[in-house]
Amino acid sequence: MLDSLFNPAGVAVIGASGKALHIGNRVIKNLLDFGYQGGIYPINPKADEIRGVKAYKSILDVPGQVDVAHMVIPAKFVPMAVEDCGKKGVKHIIINSGGFSETGPQGAEIEKAFLEKAREYGIRIFGPNCQGIINADPAVKAYCNFTFTFPEAGHISIVALSGGVAEVIHQGFSAMDVGTRIYASNGNACDISIPEIIRYLADDDGTRVIVTYVEGLKDPMGFFEAAREATAKKPVLAMKAGRTLEGAQAAASHTGGLAREDLATDLIFKKAGIVDFRDEGHLINAAVAFGSQPIPAGNRVGIITNTGGPAVIATDVLVDAGLTLPPLSENTKALLTEKLYPEASVSNPVDVLATGTAEHYLACLEAMMADDSFDCILVNFVTPFFVNTEDIAAAIARVNMQQIKPMVCNLMTDRRQWAETEAILKAGGVPCFALPSDAARALGALVRYRRILDRPSGRIRSFADVDTEGARAIFNQARGGGLLAADQVYGILEAYGIDVPQWQMADGMDGVIAAADRIGYPVVVKADAASVVHKSDMGGVAVNLPDAQAVHKAVTTMKEAIDAADLRFFVQQFVPGGREVILGAKAEPGMGHLIMFGLGGIFVEVLKDVVFNLTPVTDADAREMVNGIRGAALLSGVRGEKPVDKTALIDLIQRLSRLTTDFPQIRELDLNPVMAFENGAVAVDARIAL
Amino acid sequence: MLDSLFNPAGVAVIGASGKALHIGNRVIKNLLDFGYQGGIYPINPKADEIRGVKAYKSILDVPGQVDVAHMVIPAKFVPMAVEDCGKKGVKHIIINSGGFSETGPQGAEIEKAFLEKAREYGIRIFGPNCQGIINADPAVKAYCNFTFTFPEAGHISIVALSGGVAEVIHQGFSAMDVGTRIYASNGNACDISIPEIIRYLADDDGTRVIVTYVEGLKDPMGFFEAAREATAKKPVLAMKAGRTLEGAQAAASHTGGLAREDLATDLIFKKAGIVDFRDEGHLINAAVAFGSQPIPAGNRVGIITNTGGPAVIATDVLVDAGLTLPPLSENTKALLTEKLYPEASVSNPVDVLATGTAEHYLACLEAMMADDSFDCILVNFVTPFFVNTEDIAAAIARVNMQQIKPMVCNLMTDRRQWAETEAILKAGGVPCFALPSDAARALGALVRYRRILDRPSGRIRSFADVDTEGARAIFNQARGGGLLAADQVYGILEAYGIDVPQWQMADGMDGVIAAADRIGYPVVVKADAASVVHKSDMGGVAVNLPDAQAVHKAVTTMKEAIDAADLRFFVQQFVPGGREVILGAKAEPGMGHLIMFGLGGIFVEVLKDVVFNLTPVTDADAREMVNGIRGAALLSGVRGEKPVDKTALIDLIQRLSRLTTDFPQIRELDLNPVMAFENGAVAVDARIAL
Repeated sequence: MLDSLFNPAGVAVIGASGKALHIGNRVIKNLLDFGYQGGIYPINPKADEIRGVKAYKSILDVPGQVDVAHMVIPAKFVPMAVEDCGKKGVKHIIINSGGFSETGPQGAEIEKAFLEKAREYGIRIFGPNCQGIINADPAVKAYCNFTFTFPEAGHISIVALSGGVAEVIHQGFSAMDVGTRIYASNGNACDISIPEIIRYLADDDGTRVIVTYVEGLKDPMGFFEAAREATAKKPVLAMKAGRTLEGAQAAASHTGGLAREDLATDLIFKKAGIVDFRDEGHLINAAVAFGSQPIPAGNRVGIITNTGGPAVIATDVLVDAGLTLPPLSENTKALLTEKLYPEASVSNPVDVLATGTAEHYLACLEAMMADDSFDCILVNFVTPFFVNTEDIAAAIARVNMQQIKPMVCNLMTDRRQWAETEAILKAGGVPCFALPSDAARALGALVRYRRILDRPSGRIRSFADVDTEGARAIFNQARGGGLLAADQVYGILEAYGIDVPQWQMADGMDGVIAAADRIGYPVVVKADAASVVHKSDMGGVAVNLPDAQAVHKAVTTMKEAIDAADLRFFVQQFVPGGREVILGAKAEPGMGHLIMFGLGGIFVEVLKDVVFNLTPVTDADAREMVNGIRGAALLSGVRGEKPVDKTALIDLIQRLSRLTTDFPQIRELDLNPVMAFENGAVAVDARIAL
Repeated sequence: MLDSLFNPAGVAVIGASGKALHIGNRVIKNLLDFGYQGGIYPINPKADEIRGVKAYKSILDVPGQVDVAHMVIPAKFVPMAVEDCGKKGVKHIIINSGGFSETGPQGAEIEKAFLEKAREYGIRIFGPNCQGIINADPAVKAYCNFTFTFPEAGHISIVALSGGVAEVIHQGFSAMDVGTRIYASNGNACDISIPEIIRYLADDDGTRVIVTYVEGLKDPMGFFEAAREATAKKPVLAMKAGRTLEGAQAAASHTGGLAREDLATDLIFKKAGIVDFRDEGHLINAAVAFGSQPIPAGNRVGIITNTGGPAVIATDVLVDAGLTLPPLSENTKALLTEKLYPEASVSNPVDVLATGTAEHYLACLEAMMADDSFDCILVNFVTPFFVNTEDIAAAIARVNMQQIKPMVCNLMTDRRQWAETEAILKAGGVPCFALPSDAARALGALVRYRRILDRPSGRIRSFADVDTEGARAIFNQARGGGLLAADQVYGILEAYGIDVPQWQMADGMDGVIAAADRIGYPVVVKADAASVVHKSDMGGVAVNLPDAQAVHKAVTTMKEAIDAADLRFFVQQFVPGGREVILGAKAEPGMGHLIMFGLGGIFVEVLKDVVFNLTPVTDADAREMVNGIRGAALLSGVRGEKPVDKTALIDLIQRLSRLTTDFPQIRELDLNPVMAFENGAVAVDARIAL
């Protein structure tokens, strides 16, 4: 579907200009300079030619096939131009111009207008308010973009709404002499979306790694589905900015969107198997490694160095990233002891010394590539003037080209004086960094993707015992919205197989005492009325009531404290002991629900020791949540305490996920606290808001 | 003292060679090429000249003054050559050669031998096993070093044992076209030390910022003192590697040192006011900013950008670093609304749009430099082909040269095509980065130093009520080492004014009951014998004993459980309630003691919620510790609980600091738990090991 966008038979530039500083001129220059072989058709009512290319008064005059129309005209002329494109049979329109939805309601109207027109003709829109596309595939060489970074052909594809950041990333690759494949920055993305482009790139054989940047997701589930499919085929690297409130505000101000807290995007990244980054430099470096290296089989790294300190730095970073540095095998050790200088350090890191030669590097590389102890290799390389650094580079490049195990190189030198040494490494496809931390982190990212590929896929449990229709009946009673009444809440939880203490709603004193007698003492009594939101604060909760007399007293006090016509009482078995945990769910528009789990009481209030996930939560997700809180050891039993029933908690999280998935109208749901015991877990207080 | 090392009147190269790949040739080439104006004296028994410079058979033949002898001869010849240098009146010897203490005991012997010889003559040694020095001061231009990175004259000085990392940092500046001042990498540092060089650089007017890298401190207190004095005069930036166990092992393997956990170095950095880094790239970038910018007065940043996304990224990083983005003042807002395009975003970040001109940038810069809302400015700058980017660069450079407020610039471009734009910024002294995160972090580092300058200096309290001699008498009784007996422990604590429950040692049943009667019930009884280390595990602790009968029973049980000839009993008032906290002290050889504070029980056991500091702990340090744990809110009272007496805890930490400072023989001391109350804090269990 997007093939004719990224590989167009002909490109018309609507708004082509003879002025060099006009985008309508630059795009033609870029197409020409980059070597585009398809038809180039400048459209300009007054010019005969632009940059030596025959111009046309209207797109309707163009003789050849036009797959892409590239528009650089004022917003108000766009709808009419789209009409012409329709008549011509154009397949895609890239709209550089701004002045649409990013500027406010008036611009949004124009955007809507031309989009309707385009749909009539089956034209797809890329943008508006965007940079455009580049395809560096040597068979295509399309540069429908007004930027100036001409990529070598490579295997990294970039897709992002933000032209500024997409370009920064692109320049990062270019500065490292690393090629790209497809570049797509679609601004307002009114039609062709990021998920759609990710799907295209996932199926593009020339793309080895997909890089994206987001500030917020326009279509979270669409993004999630596309990314999840893509990450199964190839690595997807992403960075989310606007993490801070101030950052989100800055993002909103330039996209015309709304600033909001955005924990959910991180979770979508995680669930989709994206390798995520918080630093664009780390993202760029990792992409360079992914672009040329195989994925490591595991996390065991061997280091070769000719200088001590940088290997120490690299080691720290690798270990932080979860890699291990196993010792050399006996065989490797014997071999290198024989081949290296006697003063060399034959352990991991291997230090061949500054005087180490190409033969020494080669011996290390070959031995460690063959050594089953290692899944990947980091090479540190300073360039003393007294060794032949070009030979060393050639040795490293030669081994890299065999693509046995992934390798990164940290070349520490003056790149102006040692340009040839660097060029040899790069020509051999060696990911070549200037700092030990950068090289180590890039390798760490490869291992992160391995971990993603190997993670348990997880299963969404269906729970045959769930009574969805029963719950639906209760929800239907509660159409008004707001907080559900206590009997509704517990009824719903029971319908979903969530353990709650025995309970009963009661009116009046006699009813309450009868209910308490039936349930058995001790009991809890809670006042329930539409006007009572903060029950505890209003004296509407009495716990651990040992007998009817205590119940009588408590109810009397509540009646005095709470003056509400609809006052009823919720009577509940009192459940003492257990480890307090809390669960919660919160609707995230367009993304389902955020599910929260943590230890109760001070752990959540003071230490914020909680974890989140997004529905639907799989069994693997739920297990990871329960084991993922900082205080997880408290669930396993510390100081001689018995462990709590983690299986019950994992089950409970999944039931909550199922419940909120079945009933998207749930705005917030709290189970606080849940008492976890050696066997089972009981939700002793709960709240549902629609 | 080091002046003639860094600004030598003459340099003799002992081991000068005619072979281009020999270090003894390269050093002469470097001195010549770099433009050293002092005397250059190649020493070679067989050559008449080296690289056109007259050579001498012996240093004793040199006619002129030789301040520095640069040795590149095998280790075994060094002691003899030092003797000659002594006769010649050489002041400093730089020894490039390896083969000394880093190789083992034999090399250490040679190192000791030549050092003794040097001391006889009053010669100072730089190295051995080192790179050497560079002084780029235009009045000096000394390059006694075999590396190849020739710096422009700048204001950043680098000092590190590790030549590899010093060189990486140096290359980092060079790659950014940023000059350095003094470069010193002294390898084994057998004589002239890092602290000594730091002191020299602190007093060197040409040095604006000192950069160092350490893997472990040879002389922690010497480093601390030198760094603390330096940071009061100028920023000291440092990175410590070997943070991980694996990293420490790698460090030990290349320095011949011991791998050990090294929390203390971080604390020394902090106490000394060092701006510390975990990433050498961040260190390099920050140094570039420090090298040219004033220190901000506060943490309020204004952003100017011509592209949205990168400003969002910068905002996130700035906010993470503790900076704030205040709104523009009304005045600035009015001014910019008038001067910028109507579509520009006149808030913070200010977005002048990609079409923004030099006039727009200038208007923003001048307004925000004058606006009291901001302490520093971050400029984002993409280079669209359709604006005059050189004019924009010139505007930024012009404002920067006024040095009103610190500024960093993130220039996002193809540096090959836009080289002139970059050159204009750099010529204007603008710290010029390629990624928004890098620019933002560098600015964040400037603000970090401001925070260090502004932090309360703290006072080391002397505690007039402390009975040092009383404690000394007890320590003198306990010369044997190991664990002190309970009465010794509590006696010492009392001597230092640390509140403990009433206590008494007692022998036999009658003694214990008499003691309990005197103290008053309930009591705690603890078995005490040299062989009983883990009292609780052996049934040697009984708490909350309400009466004599209970004491009798407990003592009987303990006597049965513990078969020790020296069994005595420690009887103590039982102190119920309170918030459990723990304090600890642990000797760090050469650094005093690590002092630990945290919440007790599961908080330390499961959540590891503890903080550390190094003795001597000031009142400000102690306050920061008490407020620095994650669960600090628990001390202030949560869920309606009363707050605990933080002042008492702050006092207690300082008394512990004083105690361990007075008695360095304390290997470990635990107060676990301390019960903190609304008024006061009582150490209810304690342990001291020598």
